[in-house]
Amino acid sequence: MKITINRKAHFNSAHRLNNKNWSHEKNIEIFGKCNNPNYHGHNYELIVSIKGEIDKDSGFVMDLKKLKEIIKEEVEDRFDHKNLNLDVREFEDLNPTVENIAVVIWNILRTKIELQNDLKITLYETPLNYVVYTGE
Amino acid sequence: MKITINRKAHFNSAHRLNNKNWSHEKNIEIFGKCNNPNYHGHNYELIVSIKGEIDKDSGFVMDLKKLKEIIKEEVEDRFDHKNLNLDVREFEDLNPTVENIAVVIWNILRTKIELQNDLKITLYETPLNYVVYTGE
Amino acid sequence: MKITINRKAHFNSAHRLNNKNWSHEKNIEIFGKCNNPNYHGHNYELIVSIKGEIDKDSGFVMDLKKLKEIIKEEVEDRFDHKNLNLDVREFEDLNPTVENIAVVIWNILRTKIELQNDLKITLYETPLNYVVYTGE
Amino acid sequence: MKITINRKAHFNSAHRLNNKNWSHEKNIEIFGKCNNPNYHGHNYELIVSIKGEIDKDSGFVMDLKKLKEIIKEEVEDRFDHKNLNLDVREFEDLNPTVENIAVVIWNILRTKIELQNDLKITLYETPLNYVVYTGE
Amino acid sequence: MKITINRKAHFNSAHRLNNKNWSHEKNIEIFGKCNNPNYHGHNYELIVSIKGEIDKDSGFVMDLKKLKEIIKEEVEDRFDHKNLNLDVREFEDLNPTVENIAVVIWNILRTKIELQNDLKITLYETPLNYVVYTGE
Amino acid sequence: MKITINRKAHFNSAHRLNNKNWSHEKNIEIFGKCNNPNYHGHNYELIVSIKGEIDKDSGFVMDLKKLKEIIKEEVEDRFDHKNLNLDVREFEDLNPTVENIAVVIWNILRTKIELQNDLKITLYETPLNYVVYTGE
Repeated sequence: MKITINRKAHFNSAHRLNNKNWSHEKNIEIFGKCNNPNYHGHNYELIVSIKGEIDKDSGFVMDLKKLKEIIKEEVEDRFDHKNLNLDVREFEDLNPTVENIAVVIWNILRTKIELQNDLKITLYETPLNYVVYTGE
Repeated sequence: MKITINRKAHFNSAHRLNNKNWSHEKNIEIFGKCNNPNYHGHNYELIVSIKGEIDKDSGFVMDLKKLKEIIKEEVEDRFDHKNLNLDVREFEDLNPTVENIAVVIWNILRTKIELQNDLKITLYETPLNYVVYTGE
Repeated sequence: MKITINRKAHFNSAHRLNNKNWSHEKNIEIFGKCNNPNYHGHNYELIVSIKGEIDKDSGFVMDLKKLKEIIKEEVEDRFDHKNLNLDVREFEDLNPTVENIAVVIWNILRTKIELQNDLKITLYETPLNYVVYTGE
Repeated sequence: MKITINRKAHFNSAHRLNNKNWSHEKNIEIFGKCNNPNYHGHNYELIVSIKGEIDKDSGFVMDLKKLKEIIKEEVEDRFDHKNLNLDVREFEDLNPTVENIAVVIWNILRTKIELQNDLKITLYETPLNYVVYTGE
Repeated sequence: MKITINRKAHFNSAHRLNNKNWSHEKNIEIFGKCNNPNYHGHNYELIVSIKGEIDKDSGFVMDLKKLKEIIKEEVEDRFDHKNLNLDVREFEDLNPTVENIAVVIWNILRTKIELQNDLKITLYETPLNYVVYTGE
Repeated sequence: MKITINRKAHFNSAHRLNNKNWSHEKNIEIFGKCNNPNYHGHNYELIVSIKGEIDKDSGFVMDLKKLKEIIKEEVEDRFDHKNLNLDVREFEDLNPTVENIAVVIWNILRTKIELQNDLKITLYETPLNYVVYTGE
């Protein structure tokens, strides 16, 4: 019996969308006000979804307290109240679009979650915009 | 790397559920108070989901500003503050159940979204009732 | 010890904003697309708030089951899945703006709630627009 | 044309996580404060999702009024304002984790929903923790 | 310049509504299924509101980190994953209705918040039922 | 008859909490990770509340389309996708705490709303923290 467990978390970060290889005009055309050199920011809402077998003895797929700790150590402590472009190593050469942030979080958590379990990342940049990434 | 981007929108419409080929009694039996000949209405909440490759240069699957405009022109401008039965061509001979509205929106947007990208429509008629359509 | 108890409810209705004494042009200028002669509609979210003394024996200001029934009989049964302009007596000569709907609901419920208790009506027309009326 | 219809419901229950075959220490280690012998409780939010063909005549996959009644009789009437461990037969020998509750609800509803339609259960234990079960 | 700061928190508890001085029949009549002797439970959502002057140097009415700690120590640690009737001293002889729980929380926090600041407690028992208490 | 109309809006901004007159240590002690020199950010949710008489002819306190435009021009266009410390004149010498941002918005809008109407600003910095300011 396989089931998906889901845990919500959040982090508040500044970021700027910019492609160093593009002209100023092209950056403005594509990224608009998201290209503001002084940064802007978001309350990112994160849902980590793990699909696996229910353990007969505990009735758990995975201890949610442990999942909560992993998310705190691997994502919140590194992304929360940070400037994604300046403070987070993974975005040194990667544009922190909500798509790319979700992929980075998936890659980080994939190494911390048992491999027989599927992993899915849902990331809200605003209440109106969000992405879903499954590692596909 | 494929990811799903999601954009929320909404429209406020009147509608009535009715099958012209059925008796009054049958319409009342099946549609209940939704059959009110004077119409009732809803705040429809729409989520448009598009799955595709992340562009290496922009970090986008698709520019969300463009998606927002497409949804505004193709759905909101045609459905918002309208009577779906009387004002929207697609429902002249189609009962505007939440299922059928979602299919109509999917058919409209399918022609506007690049074909290599998957399209999914989620439509809330009320906070307690919603449908998901993938074109299957 | 006075406390305010609050109960949420909702109803789905069609309506049209229109002033019969105004020209077509004036109605369009003031009410815009809300003036659509074929109606549009909303999921109205209602909060009924009652402030009074906590009864020592029950620990209740008022039995919420009774309040739920009063709201159902007096508001939901009369407004839900109705056309406010055509089906609800109170709006025969009253424009069903969210302001006026809230005042009508307050007037209806004021006669059903014990007079020593204060009554407040909060009414959402959309998630972005709502009003609060206290009978002031 | 296949579409998924979704209906939300809720129930408020007490429960305790405990494995009778484990020592007190092991139960505390694994279940923490959820092992409180005096019970604690939750507002469970349930989403029942049914995927099937849209009926040409009604425009429905299934009458949502009937689905609402099935959920009320089979889930709410049996789980709401109950102690899951003491009052619900299915948990006599099954630990009422959110995973197991979702599986129990799926098993109950699977016998009430037409077999050609897919069934999915989403169950929120808190706004931050939820599971999704498809019978896989 | 006075402003109100608000901090949300939550706790998950079991409870039972019962008046020891009433007959079984009267308890059932007034409290219905909330009288279940085996308890039921809720996810209580709490909002603590404090009104005071903005400090010129910090721009704060009060450090929200400190408020968060006070709520954790005084409310969450004592109420969360507890049976209110059996585990929380204040309800030994007080019926844990949502009204009375809000008053108890107000009384606890009033001694921890500076006296020149106003205190207001909002407590949701379910998404549809909540109370507001100001110590009036 | 006086009623309060409410309109929601939002803006996404970067900010940093810092007092130039304090030592680095004191800034860290009081503002913690909010003092990050590289900034962090939030999705600010704003509710503008206006209390006034219902106009007999329109049924409006104020045209919500006009209120929406005022909020867009005076708040969203100036604050959205900006760095509050660097890009918004009002915070050159004012620490952009959520308290101070709400006061600044109140002061801006007070000059745009008719004086006989009361004005209240509710501002969410995160879903868990918000303030309410009435100009008191």
